[in-house]
Amino acid sequence: MVEVTAVKFEDDKLVILDQTKLPGREEYVTLETKEGVWDAIKKLMVRGAPAIGIAAAYGLYVTMRDSETADIHEFVSRAQEAADYLNSSRPTAVNLSWALKRQMKALRELESQEKSVDEAKQTLLEVADQIRQEDEDSCKAMGEYGLSLLKPGMGILTHCNAGTLATAKYGTSIAPLYLGQERGYNFRVFSDETRPLLQGARLTAWEMVKAGIDETVICDNMAYTVMKKGWIDAVMVGCDRMAANGDGANKIGTAGLSVIAKSFGIPFYMFVPTSTIDFDTPTGDDITIELRDGEEIRSLWYAEPQAPEGAKFFNPAFDVTPAENITAIITENGIVRPPFSENLRKAAENRLED
Amino acid sequence: MVEVTAVKFEDDKLVILDQTKLPGREEYVTLETKEGVWDAIKKLMVRGAPAIGIAAAYGLYVTMRDSETADIHEFVSRAQEAADYLNSSRPTAVNLSWALKRQMKALRELESQEKSVDEAKQTLLEVADQIRQEDEDSCKAMGEYGLSLLKPGMGILTHCNAGTLATAKYGTSIAPLYLGQERGYNFRVFSDETRPLLQGARLTAWEMVKAGIDETVICDNMAYTVMKKGWIDAVMVGCDRMAANGDGANKIGTAGLSVIAKSFGIPFYMFVPTSTIDFDTPTGDDITIELRDGEEIRSLWYAEPQAPEGAKFFNPAFDVTPAENITAIITENGIVRPPFSENLRKAAENRLED
Repeated sequence: MVEVTAVKFEDDKLVILDQTKLPGREEYVTLETKEGVWDAIKKLMVRGAPAIGIAAAYGLYVTMRDSETADIHEFVSRAQEAADYLNSSRPTAVNLSWALKRQMKALRELESQEKSVDEAKQTLLEVADQIRQEDEDSCKAMGEYGLSLLKPGMGILTHCNAGTLATAKYGTSIAPLYLGQERGYNFRVFSDETRPLLQGARLTAWEMVKAGIDETVICDNMAYTVMKKGWIDAVMVGCDRMAANGDGANKIGTAGLSVIAKSFGIPFYMFVPTSTIDFDTPTGDDITIELRDGEEIRSLWYAEPQAPEGAKFFNPAFDVTPAENITAIITENGIVRPPFSENLRKAAENRLED
Repeated sequence: MVEVTAVKFEDDKLVILDQTKLPGREEYVTLETKEGVWDAIKKLMVRGAPAIGIAAAYGLYVTMRDSETADIHEFVSRAQEAADYLNSSRPTAVNLSWALKRQMKALRELESQEKSVDEAKQTLLEVADQIRQEDEDSCKAMGEYGLSLLKPGMGILTHCNAGTLATAKYGTSIAPLYLGQERGYNFRVFSDETRPLLQGARLTAWEMVKAGIDETVICDNMAYTVMKKGWIDAVMVGCDRMAANGDGANKIGTAGLSVIAKSFGIPFYMFVPTSTIDFDTPTGDDITIELRDGEEIRSLWYAEPQAPEGAKFFNPAFDVTPAENITAIITENGIVRPPFSENLRKAAENRLED
């Protein structure tokens, strides 16, 4: 069962689980100001594209609900300022700007109709609720489609964290594991620790243990061995951006996994909400990969640095799994099989049955 | 240039570089007693099969040189006790027992000839010197053969540490990099950090920086990306035990690398002294893999544990690279190409030219 909600709105309060404290401590933080929300996103206390979008949407409501103006134009103008401010917390996070734009679009409509500030406040809350609910529905749908590919007792290899911590509920690639758990599937989950940020060891393993799912943590370089031993029936991963041809960018290490899985004939499933498919990007070669600070490799988490001064570091945050290594792409609208170029468009238009 | 010697015998003193302190501190420790040698091996202050053998051989000399008995039988009996004790420090290290047996065999010969204790002491030092020199010669030969496969400016991917720190000098798979450096090859070296014990980041990177070789540290899961970018012209790794068919056990992660390298058509070279080939082991499936404590994944090096309580861990120390993924096996007697079953025997008998 999903026991954890990364972003909650309860008793009129925005409460997030501080993911920087995991797995050692489970601490929740109440966010009451826009500065608090900005900080929580900036410092990765809340992370995962959908979860960030949800936090920002509720964050805008929390920021504006105590506004004392009765003038809708002034209210919308102040909301825009707050939205711009919140959006600056992680400029490259697609869901962040998408959620805030959606909020502002709703406000502009009310403004054009000269509606009241009270209605505007109510709308901010409703849109935030919608964004949260739609993400949960999308995750649940991916979970059902994903689960249809699996059988009880299977061994599943995960990479990074695409679980409930990153979304409204269920996660993307982790959703089938939660649904399977509810139905007695007794999966055996193996999680790559996912260097250098350890999202697998810190977050996915923590989620699985919380949910009572059988969880074994391995180092990234042990994936070959668990596959060779016959322990893995499917590799299931998330996706940060998919090109029109089905090449999918995901956390560093995913592409190598796909090559090894293919060599063993193990199915490789990528979980991709259709909003993550970028049809303006023809192939994975057109996706720019974020390079991060080498200190994440050299010294993060450590009591002292574990590589010498004078060495260089190369620290790409993502890699691109070639479409030909992906067995199927699971979207909220259904399971996409090759040829991906054609079938991804059908999925986005919700006409996979055509 | 090789600036570092892991095990030195200078001014009649056994001095080792304490590798547990790397890369932060370069500290040398003088070992004067058998307890000190035992401890240094046990605690991995000296590591790498050849280096352990050399340390033990000199360690036996250091232990026995101050023996006051003039009776050769008593001397040999005490030496055997000391050898048994030293051998218990890491019972599975092949070179450790091999080096001590070689010392004891030489002593037994002297004993049977009723030679003097002084001669016996002198012999212990000479055999230790021989073991050290033979290892250096073997590494140098592997280095020359390996270098013949490379061109100036190439990018080389390494895994774990099979460098000078693990041997008398030069290392095995790292030897060509040192020889190339002496000859202006300007290699660009990429080193997998090699979780969980970080031998790549802590030791290989440190060696390379010390030698002035261009060094970039990556996480294990980034190997695909550096290969995809075209930065890697060869993967060069060591070997802990090779089966008769050419399947080679090496540090965990090596086998996965071999699959990825093969998918890109990048040569994969394994450096294997013929003493490491076990002709009594038919294939890699017959090699037992050491499983280590999960805390190495969960908490070693860290300021606090980075995986939850309640998760299981799987921590194999080695994996087996299938012979078909190995482009060539480099031995001290020459370069072995497929069919390996036949040609490895020729290499061991030093008749590769047949």
